[in-house]
Amino acid sequence: MIEDKNPQRTSISQLGEFGLIDHLTQQFEMAQPSTLKGIGDDAAVLDFKDKKVVVSTDLLVEGVHFDLAYMPLKHLGYKSVVVNVSDICAMNAKPTQITVSIAVSNRFPLEALEELFAGIALAAKEYGVDVIGGDTTSSQKGLLISITALGEADADELVYRNGAKANDLIVVTGDIGAAYMGLQVLEREKQVFQVNPNSQPDLDAYTYLIERQLKPEARKDVRTMLHALEIKPTGMIDISDGLSSEVIHLCKQSNTGCNIFEDKLPLDPQLIATCEEFNIDATTVAINGGEDYELLFTIGMDDFDKIKGNPNFTVIGHMTDPAEGIHLVTRAHTKIALKARGWNALNKE
Amino acid sequence: MIEDKNPQRTSISQLGEFGLIDHLTQQFEMAQPSTLKGIGDDAAVLDFKDKKVVVSTDLLVEGVHFDLAYMPLKHLGYKSVVVNVSDICAMNAKPTQITVSIAVSNRFPLEALEELFAGIALAAKEYGVDVIGGDTTSSQKGLLISITALGEADADELVYRNGAKANDLIVVTGDIGAAYMGLQVLEREKQVFQVNPNSQPDLDAYTYLIERQLKPEARKDVRTMLHALEIKPTGMIDISDGLSSEVIHLCKQSNTGCNIFEDKLPLDPQLIATCEEFNIDATTVAINGGEDYELLFTIGMDDFDKIKGNPNFTVIGHMTDPAEGIHLVTRAHTKIALKARGWNALNKE
Repeated sequence: MIEDKNPQRTSISQLGEFGLIDHLTQQFEMAQPSTLKGIGDDAAVLDFKDKKVVVSTDLLVEGVHFDLAYMPLKHLGYKSVVVNVSDICAMNAKPTQITVSIAVSNRFPLEALEELFAGIALAAKEYGVDVIGGDTTSSQKGLLISITALGEADADELVYRNGAKANDLIVVTGDIGAAYMGLQVLEREKQVFQVNPNSQPDLDAYTYLIERQLKPEARKDVRTMLHALEIKPTGMIDISDGLSSEVIHLCKQSNTGCNIFEDKLPLDPQLIATCEEFNIDATTVAINGGEDYELLFTIGMDDFDKIKGNPNFTVIGHMTDPAEGIHLVTRAHTKIALKARGWNALNKE
Repeated sequence: MIEDKNPQRTSISQLGEFGLIDHLTQQFEMAQPSTLKGIGDDAAVLDFKDKKVVVSTDLLVEGVHFDLAYMPLKHLGYKSVVVNVSDICAMNAKPTQITVSIAVSNRFPLEALEELFAGIALAAKEYGVDVIGGDTTSSQKGLLISITALGEADADELVYRNGAKANDLIVVTGDIGAAYMGLQVLEREKQVFQVNPNSQPDLDAYTYLIERQLKPEARKDVRTMLHALEIKPTGMIDISDGLSSEVIHLCKQSNTGCNIFEDKLPLDPQLIATCEEFNIDATTVAINGGEDYELLFTIGMDDFDKIKGNPNFTVIGHMTDPAEGIHLVTRAHTKIALKARGWNALNKE
């Protein structure tokens, strides 16, 4: 589809590697006080002074993590930054810098990479992170994006996965499951398009779901909100692989069990309607669907009053002694053991 | 070739993504004082105190940067770390941490990834860097390794590419060109093997060249040596793309010209002999061959006495006013303009 959309096509090899890097990175300005030197030397130079530094990295592979049939390159660039920034937010740290490496096959013209980098630049600006380095090379097949994100925080601000205690409340930001159903809608439209390329999709009923899939946002705002509410979570993780996987990570690393209540799960009305249309159980989607990039965290019971009624946060359950296991309590009051299904990129081949 | 060598093959998908990451990373111990938390949370946590932080990243792609027909996976793991550590050394900083992400097709069994990670672990130990994070996923084709390296230095220790002045001496560590000729020897053997799989290669005459290609080392020792000699380079870069490219980077960023003298280039006798056998000009190889991972740096004339006769360092030329251009002065005393040829991974497809 890319080929059709770009009447002008410039071969990447016309610029050469150095020319390409210069061309794609000249739009990046350094805004973080901690960035002393960005792109242009053997390494970037940073100064975090007395702050702790957090580092996270993610690899996105065409055909495994994204499908360019329905993922516009600008959106892909944006999302690839969000995915990494989300990990920094999940430490309760402030994202500050990213490096961006791409491997790309020669079917991509320069104009395609410009779109990708426009999305990267937009996200970098939106989240206030400096693009301080990267690598650009060819691939044997498809597009691959590797991003490393850095962030900073005071030592006493950082929140790990292993600090939750029995009786802590389990809280989720925003709503969950929508990104997964957005993907199902897009996959269906792709099938329809393959059968009849002239069909005009009517996606009005799914705009929220599709936006959650194509243009997710990292919850950079949660750090600020929690700070204002004078809450420090005891444990925190971002929801990239699905609620079930993330809850299990928190419980295992904190040595707790938990009860999650089905009737507390925050679901968008569009998600519920679309699950009915697709004849899929909305709870299953909310628990196992990934890529929402909401934050899942635990707080002491004493902090409940601070978030009660706050529309940004939903208490979905509580931690227990580890012997009680990790369960979903259904609307029918039965307990089902949660399993880590999530997104297993390694099983997709 | 991998398939033949591994009678035991465990499918990666048997472990799942989390199981695979646990399995491959359990061997990594944190040794750097600046590593507060390594693998196991949303992000690693580091504390560099009053040091500056340097960050560099590289992407290695099968079929573009390496060929598994002659590159053993353990060597590849080792080299992928070296390539990144070398960039940190080129800032005159001390390498401290790396993240390692890999994308791998399902033709690789678990045992192959174990070999790769054994090489990564060996290099991490050798260079004293902690493996603090990464990502593991499937690829549509082949193997891809993305590493980000971090290092630390005091602000006044850092050496950039842009500090060289006219009349500064240009110095190279070790010898150059051998890694490129090692590749030529391996490529020739691959051709022979394809014609006659039973042929027994006799590589005794090329051991140094092959080692330089398959198991290069980053010059972590140079920082210590220069410190002991009380020399601070004015500009520095590592030789990954070839001397010519790197000299041009230094000159352009420092706004200088230069004269490099052909008869000063440090060439190993095995390189000279093999170039004769292959009927290739050794100077061309020394100037355009990449992957030596030696350091190229400039020093003030006043520091010449400190390195005179030191077998680790060779003065190969001097910086000039920018108007004089960037030249190689041949043995016949003619001047040839240097061009950035280097390794252009984007032209290899």
